Amino acid sequence: MNNIQFDNNRRLKHFISIEGLKRDFLLKILKVAQSFISSQDHKIRKVPLLRGKTVINLFFEPSTRTRTTFEIAAKRLSADVINFNINASSSSKGESLTDMLHNLEAMHCDMFVVRHASSGAAHFFAEHVSPDTHIVNAGDGCHEHPTQAMLDVLTIQQHKGDFAPLRVAIVGDILHSRVARSLIHALSTLGVMEIRAVGPKTLLPNNLENLGAHPYHNLHEGIRDVDVIVMLRLQRERMSSALLPSEHEYFQQFGMTQSLLEEAHPDAIVMHPGPINRGVEMTSSVADCPRSVILQQVSNGIAVRMAVMAIAMGVPLSVPEY
Amino acid sequence: MNNIQFDNNRRLKHFISIEGLKRDFLLKILKVAQSFISSQDHKIRKVPLLRGKTVINLFFEPSTRTRTTFEIAAKRLSADVINFNINASSSSKGESLTDMLHNLEAMHCDMFVVRHASSGAAHFFAEHVSPDTHIVNAGDGCHEHPTQAMLDVLTIQQHKGDFAPLRVAIVGDILHSRVARSLIHALSTLGVMEIRAVGPKTLLPNNLENLGAHPYHNLHEGIRDVDVIVMLRLQRERMSSALLPSEHEYFQQFGMTQSLLEEAHPDAIVMHPGPINRGVEMTSSVADCPRSVILQQVSNGIAVRMAVMAIAMGVPLSVPEY
Amino acid sequence: MNNIQFDNNRRLKHFISIEGLKRDFLLKILKVAQSFISSQDHKIRKVPLLRGKTVINLFFEPSTRTRTTFEIAAKRLSADVINFNINASSSSKGESLTDMLHNLEAMHCDMFVVRHASSGAAHFFAEHVSPDTHIVNAGDGCHEHPTQAMLDVLTIQQHKGDFAPLRVAIVGDILHSRVARSLIHALSTLGVMEIRAVGPKTLLPNNLENLGAHPYHNLHEGIRDVDVIVMLRLQRERMSSALLPSEHEYFQQFGMTQSLLEEAHPDAIVMHPGPINRGVEMTSSVADCPRSVILQQVSNGIAVRMAVMAIAMGVPLSVPEY
Repeated sequence: MNNIQFDNNRRLKHFISIEGLKRDFLLKILKVAQSFISSQDHKIRKVPLLRGKTVINLFFEPSTRTRTTFEIAAKRLSADVINFNINASSSSKGESLTDMLHNLEAMHCDMFVVRHASSGAAHFFAEHVSPDTHIVNAGDGCHEHPTQAMLDVLTIQQHKGDFAPLRVAIVGDILHSRVARSLIHALSTLGVMEIRAVGPKTLLPNNLENLGAHPYHNLHEGIRDVDVIVMLRLQRERMSSALLPSEHEYFQQFGMTQSLLEEAHPDAIVMHPGPINRGVEMTSSVADCPRSVILQQVSNGIAVRMAVMAIAMGVPLSVPEY
Repeated sequence: MNNIQFDNNRRLKHFISIEGLKRDFLLKILKVAQSFISSQDHKIRKVPLLRGKTVINLFFEPSTRTRTTFEIAAKRLSADVINFNINASSSSKGESLTDMLHNLEAMHCDMFVVRHASSGAAHFFAEHVSPDTHIVNAGDGCHEHPTQAMLDVLTIQQHKGDFAPLRVAIVGDILHSRVARSLIHALSTLGVMEIRAVGPKTLLPNNLENLGAHPYHNLHEGIRDVDVIVMLRLQRERMSSALLPSEHEYFQQFGMTQSLLEEAHPDAIVMHPGPINRGVEMTSSVADCPRSVILQQVSNGIAVRMAVMAIAMGVPLSVPEY
Repeated sequence: MNNIQFDNNRRLKHFISIEGLKRDFLLKILKVAQSFISSQDHKIRKVPLLRGKTVINLFFEPSTRTRTTFEIAAKRLSADVINFNINASSSSKGESLTDMLHNLEAMHCDMFVVRHASSGAAHFFAEHVSPDTHIVNAGDGCHEHPTQAMLDVLTIQQHKGDFAPLRVAIVGDILHSRVARSLIHALSTLGVMEIRAVGPKTLLPNNLENLGAHPYHNLHEGIRDVDVIVMLRLQRERMSSALLPSEHEYFQQFGMTQSLLEEAHPDAIVMHPGPINRGVEMTSSVADCPRSVILQQVSNGIAVRMAVMAIAMGVPLSVPEY
């Protein structure tokens, strides 16, 4: 299979999906990301790796939060960053996507961070972009959100070390979640013992077994003895489509509470991609308990995005032997 | 009293209000601010004091002007700056203020410049933020706008030198003005001889005497022999609330004219926080006369904000003995 | 004539219009622009020429594309860049243009890049700005768009070398086009042999001959034997004003096709300021053919804007003998 993410020398060129990446490569990203976190104070170091490079944040879906993490990551790498808001821009002038892309790359940009409501958008850009330009997928429709998956597995690695013996439960609307898709691929590639997909039948995909995950429709059973619990964000806009019950009913069936947490392994950590709907996906006491590593995920998001940008841009990294 | 603005070593950590700051400390800010202004051409020097630091402009109220001054100040200090527009952001996703704050600080930001329509918002953030993160108040409701007060007193100092012998008149809607509140605290702390609050009865607070200011309801009397006149901006949105007469009537009673200016000390300066409503708070001839120092206030705003940011961030400053 | 663009020592201070500039000066801009393009990989070099300077993008008309090119150009020169969006800003507070300008320049900005819907706006700013501040016109009404003209002639120079023997056809709504006005001035000053203005009678200005251009109402005749074809963008909003026929009818009369292109010189290049309305100004096969240099124009836009900013700012340039 010809993976568009790599060039002929098998170097990463674009970062589009976790699907298709090998275990060693995921571990390399984690290693590089960890190298950006100061061992002293856990702050992210500013490094000159992308000095003189220009990164364009190309967001077709509004997302100040994710856009900001990429902006901070690029600036920590000393790149120049341009935020390009598409709604307020030339798309209203009837310009085609490829014309816009070619115009932007003609402005001598080195990387585009792309978020788009359509699955496959980042792949489409990677196919059409010039050889010197790099694409990072910041979320495409229901397809993938690969940097989110990498920050999730970095957080798991920091707490659990080895992936092999882990049981991980992902809870919520897995069918529509690009976060879940990318994470299942990453966990599967990293070789965790068991991946559980926990949610109502209407919100679990049919091909779970192909992905290496097992379906659970009951939260008690789904999280029993797991080491990691990943609660997905409830997309409120889905509820109007009758796929989801009311928030209250959802919480009754799939919301995490302190007493439920007892079902999991005593050292289990609780994760969430944010922002949390408190009282819907979990109680505030769970969100703020010592086992919640949600803010650490946010921190790791900066380090992981720096790693992905630096690796894709092909700059020499001072990380030994990977 | 435990002042949240200082850490246990009595170093400034947050800059929330003028109230509670000592005279020596205000003079220190002025000295540091002045050090950023080139004595040669009065331009603001670019210095590397905050290189590698990240400042987030967290504006819940739209204010391009104030946001821009903080952005320029931070960039003159060589910090990376992120503008975070809250309306277009996750607040619409139902995220709580503290969750948003914790998420942003997890992105490894060093400082938040906060503007919010609610009094106490900056204080609230300072209470909930992690130990390594600093808050600067860029205006909170009707409470305080401390950097505006500091640029005002820097401008006064540049023209008058010593604060002790000064008479200062503040004219307008003092009741609702965070600018006036902060300025009265600053002038009082710096020990000016007399502070006059000039405005219609409905727009003067009851506790003026406690603040060290004296009420005047007549502009002629209010500015007689004063050295400094600070005209406040008329908030047009207040007029609909029947607290204010028409613009024309307001100008008749409290608008500054060239002939009125004769009542003040011959060397009196005229100030205004901007933007001016010409023909309402003052005539154009007053706004543009040699005694108007309004644009100098704007310039000083950059220097003062640089000083506050650098001091709060705890970086070593090359300003001798303060 | 006292040209506001130059100071008393005949150095460029503002860049407002091509009209009034001499041939040698246009050639100097082209030479400096070319010096920013790496001869090796045609990438734009990042240079420290404007380190410590602040450039404000002051856009009264929304134009993400042009704003982005100026932002990239300024950052490639190592300047700090502030984007100042006027609609969301103090213009809504009833501030006058000159007050806004004086306030912004008091913030210690070195350059304003101004786009405005009114012809003469950039000139107005240049008249009212303080001596140390520089204005670059990024398009003012139907008047001029001088950096666009310079990137056009840079592209022509790269392909054709000498300007003297060239025949150039400009096709479309020339009457309302600031791009066309600036380009005609530039081509005329650079001494091309022939400038043709091709369009329907209602969309050609009366004073074409004064500008040094010849009117053509038939596309076949207009492009016969020309070396350069510049297709203007059709402003769709004009069609409602009955000045233009339908898009389809426009394409029938003035749209460029592969077969029509045969009328021009065999080495003719096709240009367009972008974004293209495919199927209106030209077919996709023309837009994407080897003779189309449209994306090269975009690239050159960065280099030309860097050159104009650096020259106006008066920094020493390492370009020998111009």
